[in-house]
Amino acid sequence: MGVSSTIALDAMSGDLGAEVVVRAAVASLSRHPDLNFILVGDEAELSSLVGNIAGDHPRLSIRHASEVVEMTDAPADAVRRKKDSSMRVAIDLVKAGDAEACVSAGNTGALMATAKFVLKMLPGIDRPAIMAELPTTGRSLHMLDLGANTICTADHLFQFAVMGSIVSADVAGIERPRIALLNIGEEAGKGNDVVRDAAAMLDASTLNYVGFIEGNDLFKDKADVVVTDGFSGNIALKAMEGMVGLMKWYLRRAFTRNLYSKLVSLVARPVLNAVSRESDSRNYNGATLVGLNGIVIKSHGGADSYAFQHAIDTAVVEVENNVPQQIGKLLQREAA
Amino acid sequence: MGVSSTIALDAMSGDLGAEVVVRAAVASLSRHPDLNFILVGDEAELSSLVGNIAGDHPRLSIRHASEVVEMTDAPADAVRRKKDSSMRVAIDLVKAGDAEACVSAGNTGALMATAKFVLKMLPGIDRPAIMAELPTTGRSLHMLDLGANTICTADHLFQFAVMGSIVSADVAGIERPRIALLNIGEEAGKGNDVVRDAAAMLDASTLNYVGFIEGNDLFKDKADVVVTDGFSGNIALKAMEGMVGLMKWYLRRAFTRNLYSKLVSLVARPVLNAVSRESDSRNYNGATLVGLNGIVIKSHGGADSYAFQHAIDTAVVEVENNVPQQIGKLLQREAA
Repeated sequence: MGVSSTIALDAMSGDLGAEVVVRAAVASLSRHPDLNFILVGDEAELSSLVGNIAGDHPRLSIRHASEVVEMTDAPADAVRRKKDSSMRVAIDLVKAGDAEACVSAGNTGALMATAKFVLKMLPGIDRPAIMAELPTTGRSLHMLDLGANTICTADHLFQFAVMGSIVSADVAGIERPRIALLNIGEEAGKGNDVVRDAAAMLDASTLNYVGFIEGNDLFKDKADVVVTDGFSGNIALKAMEGMVGLMKWYLRRAFTRNLYSKLVSLVARPVLNAVSRESDSRNYNGATLVGLNGIVIKSHGGADSYAFQHAIDTAVVEVENNVPQQIGKLLQREAA
Repeated sequence: MGVSSTIALDAMSGDLGAEVVVRAAVASLSRHPDLNFILVGDEAELSSLVGNIAGDHPRLSIRHASEVVEMTDAPADAVRRKKDSSMRVAIDLVKAGDAEACVSAGNTGALMATAKFVLKMLPGIDRPAIMAELPTTGRSLHMLDLGANTICTADHLFQFAVMGSIVSADVAGIERPRIALLNIGEEAGKGNDVVRDAAAMLDASTLNYVGFIEGNDLFKDKADVVVTDGFSGNIALKAMEGMVGLMKWYLRRAFTRNLYSKLVSLVARPVLNAVSRESDSRNYNGATLVGLNGIVIKSHGGADSYAFQHAIDTAVVEVENNVPQQIGKLLQREAA
């Protein structure tokens, strides 16, 4: 990373506990020689884990937090009542400038509400959105919102498009990213008022808007940024994840069906493993909460250490590219 | 089918033209020895196609229709202005009792509006929904709405659940089908007001409601009927279709990457072909427009002859099971 950076890791809020986060941090230290980590959570538990896994490490520190946000906590309660949660303290470290980014595998709603409360939104942005990078047969795709906002207006979708465009251009290096709106048809009249109004706004903007896109075209390299509301986006993302599972189940069943297929599977193993790795959703773990005055990365709640490392890598890229500042600049340009 | 039945086929409205429909009808005649088809559309074109493909066939007749509903036609225009379209005439045949069901690969919105106008809704149902059967690792799944209604109320979702439950019980033979609502989380507070209100209604009903389901659990045999609004449902369905395409692309690439993988692909071909067949969405072509006083099956617009045959098969099953009457009966029971 050139200059030294610090990332705060909420070590307590994921489904699989603190060990996953500590192991991911230790593994990431060697891959990122300029990076420092602050592990946030129960000091006794974290000290013991660090001692067992890494011994002492100069770039790994611990910040105590006495509370944990549960997956069942209401977002407003997390903000109001758990001011010493590992999630809150990790975000506070970003606000105070003690960390350049934070990563959490906790409750999405609570993370969003806390981040919004502590860090505030960029001027011109009403709501944060969850954005992730997805694979395609060509260039990778940035999609948002993946679950932060269950109800969106056309204005929100427009703001998501601006933010997606910036990240696609600055982080993925794509010139004039193609922006599409996820819809149930490609024709102009399809969908509901929200997507139709957002389409009119995008048409009139300086963004490179290319129209509506359907779910079956997502992976065909027809758009660099796909914008949708958080309800449909989350459902689409998880349905795709489910379909990967079903396809792998089909493959396993076919390759164990009879003696011939079992023999074939022996020689096909390295090839099948490559496919399994490529379609492993853990390689895409780490979604960005865009629109905030600061970098907050949301890891899948059930992320293992391998997946959590990918979320850390996403944070590193965002820090390197100064994403919030870049979005802020483009928003001012669009408003001018 | 035991007794002789007749199915009207809109031969003109699909993307690939009338030949696909004529070929599917001819192939289906031999598989269903008690079935009659009425091909609806341009008489000269259809006569020539039938002559070339089948010669004369006693169970294949042609009904002339002078107009075609285009994919770009607004639903209201299709209803008001194209009263002699192949789509309209095929539905009129069902209304008149000359056919027990009709199948169309045309414009979804126009098909729904025309079917609703001509056949009317079952008592207690406000809107038709598009329902399809999807594969899982266990029993197959009925999912609705897949695109008929872009905005739904909790009442609509409840009605969809009732209809899905009947079809799952009577057509798939599942006792007390497990009903789930598609949502962005499993916890009670997740999602938006519409799904939360629908959950409360389902909880209080006689249906076997099992709670919210997320997209990644769709294929894990956790529910027999999954209910959602038409916007999210259509996006989820197409995103899954897209993911199947991406997985097949990964497989193709992995098996052609180097000499070893190419050699492996030779012996693995029969196994891979089995997977390809199992995950072929054409085997699931043919969605039902449930809620109408009559059977209307929607085929994918781009369906080829193989896929269109599956849509015909769906119609056959619905006719055999008298689906609209069965739904009507359960609705009366729920209302009592």
